Amino acid sequence: MRMYDLIEKKRDGKELTKDEIHFFIDGYTNGDIPDYQVSALLMATFFQDMTEAERAELTASMVASGEQIDLSAISGVKVDKHSTGGVGDTTTLILAPLVASVGVPVAKMSGRGLGHTGGTIDKLEAIPGFHVELSNDEFIDSVNKNKVAVVGQTGNLTPADKKLYSLRDVTATVNSIPLIASSIMSKKIASGADAIVLDVKTGTGAFMKDYHEAKALAEAMVSIGNHVGRDTLAIISDMNQPLGKAIGNALEVKEAIDTLQGNGPSDLTALCLELGSHMTVLAGKADTVEEAKKRLTENLNNGKALERFKTFVESQGGDPRVIDHPELLPQATHKIELPATKSGTVSEIIADDIGTAAMMLGAGRSTKNSEIDLSVGIVLHKKIGDTVNEGEPLVTIHTNDSSIDTIKEKLYASISVSDHAVEAPTLIHSTVR
Amino acid sequence: MRMYDLIEKKRDGKELTKDEIHFFIDGYTNGDIPDYQVSALLMATFFQDMTEAERAELTASMVASGEQIDLSAISGVKVDKHSTGGVGDTTTLILAPLVASVGVPVAKMSGRGLGHTGGTIDKLEAIPGFHVELSNDEFIDSVNKNKVAVVGQTGNLTPADKKLYSLRDVTATVNSIPLIASSIMSKKIASGADAIVLDVKTGTGAFMKDYHEAKALAEAMVSIGNHVGRDTLAIISDMNQPLGKAIGNALEVKEAIDTLQGNGPSDLTALCLELGSHMTVLAGKADTVEEAKKRLTENLNNGKALERFKTFVESQGGDPRVIDHPELLPQATHKIELPATKSGTVSEIIADDIGTAAMMLGAGRSTKNSEIDLSVGIVLHKKIGDTVNEGEPLVTIHTNDSSIDTIKEKLYASISVSDHAVEAPTLIHSTVR
Repeated sequence: MRMYDLIEKKRDGKELTKDEIHFFIDGYTNGDIPDYQVSALLMATFFQDMTEAERAELTASMVASGEQIDLSAISGVKVDKHSTGGVGDTTTLILAPLVASVGVPVAKMSGRGLGHTGGTIDKLEAIPGFHVELSNDEFIDSVNKNKVAVVGQTGNLTPADKKLYSLRDVTATVNSIPLIASSIMSKKIASGADAIVLDVKTGTGAFMKDYHEAKALAEAMVSIGNHVGRDTLAIISDMNQPLGKAIGNALEVKEAIDTLQGNGPSDLTALCLELGSHMTVLAGKADTVEEAKKRLTENLNNGKALERFKTFVESQGGDPRVIDHPELLPQATHKIELPATKSGTVSEIIADDIGTAAMMLGAGRSTKNSEIDLSVGIVLHKKIGDTVNEGEPLVTIHTNDSSIDTIKEKLYASISVSDHAVEAPTLIHSTVR
Repeated sequence: MRMYDLIEKKRDGKELTKDEIHFFIDGYTNGDIPDYQVSALLMATFFQDMTEAERAELTASMVASGEQIDLSAISGVKVDKHSTGGVGDTTTLILAPLVASVGVPVAKMSGRGLGHTGGTIDKLEAIPGFHVELSNDEFIDSVNKNKVAVVGQTGNLTPADKKLYSLRDVTATVNSIPLIASSIMSKKIASGADAIVLDVKTGTGAFMKDYHEAKALAEAMVSIGNHVGRDTLAIISDMNQPLGKAIGNALEVKEAIDTLQGNGPSDLTALCLELGSHMTVLAGKADTVEEAKKRLTENLNNGKALERFKTFVESQGGDPRVIDHPELLPQATHKIELPATKSGTVSEIIADDIGTAAMMLGAGRSTKNSEIDLSVGIVLHKKIGDTVNEGEPLVTIHTNDSSIDTIKEKLYASISVSDHAVEAPTLIHSTVR
């Protein structure tokens, strides 16, 4: 078998066989196939796409390229959730204890943030004492005991994906549905999930700005999951504005606690219930999404979800007093309100720009090695469709630096107030299964 | 400027600027831009093509990447000819002295053959004593004195093209009109030609089997030439069967001598007159193609073209006696005739297979370092459209090895005789200017 022939086949729109895809991934992982041939194949794939069978084989071969997490010692169906990334997306912090509270085992491997989208681990580390360095046995024991644990990424998972991603990143071949879908799914599958719920974002603040592209990505991932024997389902949710109201690590922990008490922002709460219900059904802990949603809603209101969060925090060394005393979370020295300069209806909140403003405050990493400030961030007081009076605060900036004129300007520029009525965007666009 | 942005632009079908193309070629030549980014750009170019302006800039930047031959010391308009390659193409050996005989200066830089298409230098070296190692001064003096000289490739011409070609060869990006056209034209332009006549072959034995692709390539090259200020013209000629009758180095020299005496095969003669007339007009030595063709035909018949060939051979150390005594050329020990096994009309002569058979006899190089046998080859006695009687020879094999059953079989398989009348293929399909 020669890599040249694979490139030519894909270039000419033909389907690669299972053996050819494994030959390519194995050869690239072990260094036999050079970058320059792989980048040619990737660009040909960008133009010619891949069939469902090819996408599934690509994913399977990337999973096989490295270690795979064995979660078989955890009883029950392990359901993982993945979001394609947005601004202010605190769902994991809420979902994990929420679905655990109805008996769904959550064995979550998570990452740190890069750029303007935050990482779950960074957020959790805003809780004093919280740590994610668990041994494999501690991790499994913790899930069996508490139904929920979060660890940092360990092991040499999907080295082929890492190598491919680095190459795609410098050859303008990131933005290809089969390549994105196989990359995401290979990581989820190698992490040991039995079933997967995907939250594919669409809108101005999402990677997939166009709804049809988001749907194509969702369909691609669901097809891959089902091809490789993992129950997979995706929802397509809105990212035309930040999710919830808080952007910043400690601020999002506070928002998660509010939500787990039933007092969260309505969009964040609704999305968590939607995702959580699907996870509950896939885990076999409810027969229908309606039944699952009912039980999850009950647990938000009766304190059981919050109780589970407390147990989870304690079991990973975190200070559980933050739940009743959020002032124990890192606090910024300045809280600066931005008043509306006119009355009207909020018509636009550019999520990327809000995210970038939060990053400029120190809430996110501009490079892999940047230090982040867990205390800072932005709290929105208004969302799209809300009315606002001149002088009423649009946002509160939590900052440790009082000279933030540039950031203020950026925030003003990213929020529009209209004289006309504006409807709030639809939150859940569709479900793909 | 970042290579990433260039790849993305081309991927998305946008036009690269002059500065961007020079940045790419300069950076690749000096090693700043890695192969894996270049192969991604090449594959994107395969799919998105290049505009005429991009093709011209790509060519100009490849010319600028290395040395350029300065032919300004030669008086007159230096016209070069290039063929995209075929089997039995002896035109250069005939054209050079033919157009020189009407005053067109021919300063030809030529190469050796690889695969089943022969190289002009190999053919010339079949003449005892002939050498192509001339100093720059000897070369220029020779052209000024005799109007014709041929040298081997010297200098570091178009290193960018060499590097790009090696990469295209392993990344399935050879077969792209803008890349083929710029590669050919950059070499011609760096070789110092003022004007260029291109012979683009089409048909089963050509690189461009499809007429429309051949035409697109011809148009691309003509456009590039004219963009960079070199008068360029292309003809599209037939390669559905070998050109002329001889395939093999000494055999083709003999055929060239016959043709220069007015006794050559009709297709080879006609093609040389067509190409030669255009060269003569571009060189300003005739006002019209008709006038040029008339003068060239005269010189084939009155001995002036042959006389010029003799002067040319002598001036480069070759034995001029071969002209009257072709038996002084290398001779194979065996001449084996292949008789027709049925009567009818020749309907097919697969050029590639005839070329490969000649290579198997030793006439061509299978690798760059193969030794070739100048004496061997194949002479066709029939061309497509000719009638043949059972037992009449189809070809004569000139060989130094009497055990050639495989080659005989290959030749029989490559020549078809039909019961029905068959027309000879059209030789000159069109002219592109």
